[in-house]
Amino acid sequence: MSTTTVIIAPTDLEDIIAAALAASKTAEANARSVARALAQAEIDGQKGHGLSRVPSYAAQARAGKVDGHAVPEVRQSRAATLMIDVRNGFAYPAFDAAIARLPQIARDAGIAAAGFVRSHHFGVVGRHVERLAETGLVALAFGNTPKAMASWGGKQPLFGTNPIAFAAPQAGAPPIVIDLALSLVARGKILTAAQRGEAIPPDWAVDAQGTPTTDAAAALKGALLPIGGAKGSALALMVEILAAAMIGASLSSEASSFFDAEGPPPGVGQLLIAIDPGAFAGQDRFAERMATLAGMVAADAGARLPGTRRLALRDKARREGVSVDAKLLAEVRALGSPRT
Amino acid sequence: MSTTTVIIAPTDLEDIIAAALAASKTAEANARSVARALAQAEIDGQKGHGLSRVPSYAAQARAGKVDGHAVPEVRQSRAATLMIDVRNGFAYPAFDAAIARLPQIARDAGIAAAGFVRSHHFGVVGRHVERLAETGLVALAFGNTPKAMASWGGKQPLFGTNPIAFAAPQAGAPPIVIDLALSLVARGKILTAAQRGEAIPPDWAVDAQGTPTTDAAAALKGALLPIGGAKGSALALMVEILAAAMIGASLSSEASSFFDAEGPPPGVGQLLIAIDPGAFAGQDRFAERMATLAGMVAADAGARLPGTRRLALRDKARREGVSVDAKLLAEVRALGSPRT
Repeated sequence: MSTTTVIIAPTDLEDIIAAALAASKTAEANARSVARALAQAEIDGQKGHGLSRVPSYAAQARAGKVDGHAVPEVRQSRAATLMIDVRNGFAYPAFDAAIARLPQIARDAGIAAAGFVRSHHFGVVGRHVERLAETGLVALAFGNTPKAMASWGGKQPLFGTNPIAFAAPQAGAPPIVIDLALSLVARGKILTAAQRGEAIPPDWAVDAQGTPTTDAAAALKGALLPIGGAKGSALALMVEILAAAMIGASLSSEASSFFDAEGPPPGVGQLLIAIDPGAFAGQDRFAERMATLAGMVAADAGARLPGTRRLALRDKARREGVSVDAKLLAEVRALGSPRT
Repeated sequence: MSTTTVIIAPTDLEDIIAAALAASKTAEANARSVARALAQAEIDGQKGHGLSRVPSYAAQARAGKVDGHAVPEVRQSRAATLMIDVRNGFAYPAFDAAIARLPQIARDAGIAAAGFVRSHHFGVVGRHVERLAETGLVALAFGNTPKAMASWGGKQPLFGTNPIAFAAPQAGAPPIVIDLALSLVARGKILTAAQRGEAIPPDWAVDAQGTPTTDAAAALKGALLPIGGAKGSALALMVEILAAAMIGASLSSEASSFFDAEGPPPGVGQLLIAIDPGAFAGQDRFAERMATLAGMVAADAGARLPGTRRLALRDKARREGVSVDAKLLAEVRALGSPRT
């Protein structure tokens, strides 16, 4: 199946996405926040969190599954914590609000955290922590997502792929950014294998009976498996507690899909933590330690710091524009065009 | 190779360990703190962090690689952070000091953290976070350890097995505790395979040239591999930054061994984070969410919450005493006996 792509300037892409959402029961300011995040995902090569989400986001806003007019409520619950009610709106405006306030709190208290309840898909998680790292902070993010992954030894999909992201600033270089889901592979890889009639490795997924399978079609009816067996399962449980139970959000097994306009709002949760290295090593010592660590990785042939691909793609987009699917772009453009 | 075991009361075991350390250039209070932690590891079935460490700890104290008389310096660096200089002493007294102070700070600020510099082996990491969870807090711990694991795609052992631990309280049940190293297997499993002349799976380790190997002897000259390939490697880098670079400690690749009395102090780092769920979900909603989550895992045949084995062993030790290696116990007892 061949796809036709077109090259578009990042700012034009953002404007087209914003227009599509603003025409879909979404406030201008929220549409702009979402568009900025989705355009950045396209720029960074994270297409699964980019333009492809717009038709589904717009449908959810039109159906009221997402409240496009929601204004996130930010409450400083303690000296170093923010409790953010996303009010079943898009997650990005809530993250913008948190990222605007966390740096000052983290600098005063040494560490700060924001919890997000009644939230939605938060996209490229690495981007949220990267923005905090751009202000000199070390940051962590955790989110639960609709059920897709079995607990180790279990039969049911209990957990989402429950991403963890981390970023740390470097002196004279862009932040190091880590962003990973806790399933060994994304569901999309199994879908591709099923479409091609190919077998999958036995550690990717279980079938509907909870038995590891090499049959891609059977795996699609079952659940993804975590990285590292029981260890990845334990990490998924940790994310479930940090991002959902501790915040008072829907558990992964209770959350509706991020992809369709059916059912109630997903109501998932997230946790964002920001730490000031000045409260520990001090800025100079921290910068030296980071440079030493990066130097050791660079000197080890074959190893590389995570996120280097993202930086190369970002640079390419700035110079040449972003390559996007032509049919999808036309669809999104049509969403934003006034109908007469 | 058969071993003879003896049954001993937990308090007697602790006293014998404390005496061995107190006779090895270690202050009484520090010896007691270390003994409590190592005896608890034996009780909890974590023998690799228990009695077997005493001869090596004692040798390190006698050689001055660990300063048995060090008093950890605790400085409140910001409103919600403690910076703890372990002063190249044992880690446990420093963790005792942090765990005594973090709950009040976490309740006031919503979140709190302690960083440990010039530190040493911190044993069963899950126990530190469990103690915080016993006060109603959710807790995270990260530590770097001497180099043992290759970066993904790399040839050199750059990272330690860099453990992550997590604990969360439950209403009417013991805390959920997660404690894992980021290598797929412990080095001890490869050592056992080499002794038996058995092959190992190709995802356990690389040889000295950085090539995945099924030869256990070659793997012992190489490095362990992380869980989940590039994902586990990224998590190890995250721990390296949180626990070492951000705290100003020795990187894993710079740290001397925890096992022998050679070289300078390891000088590794650790980070302990405590969060009050009252600042987010609130205590009642948090308790309900945890109960719902635990119920879902319990209802999924084959799945179980992490740490259930520990609780069973702890209960058995209380009723019947702990089973320890007889030869090792005699060796430790001899260390604590006055020589005339």
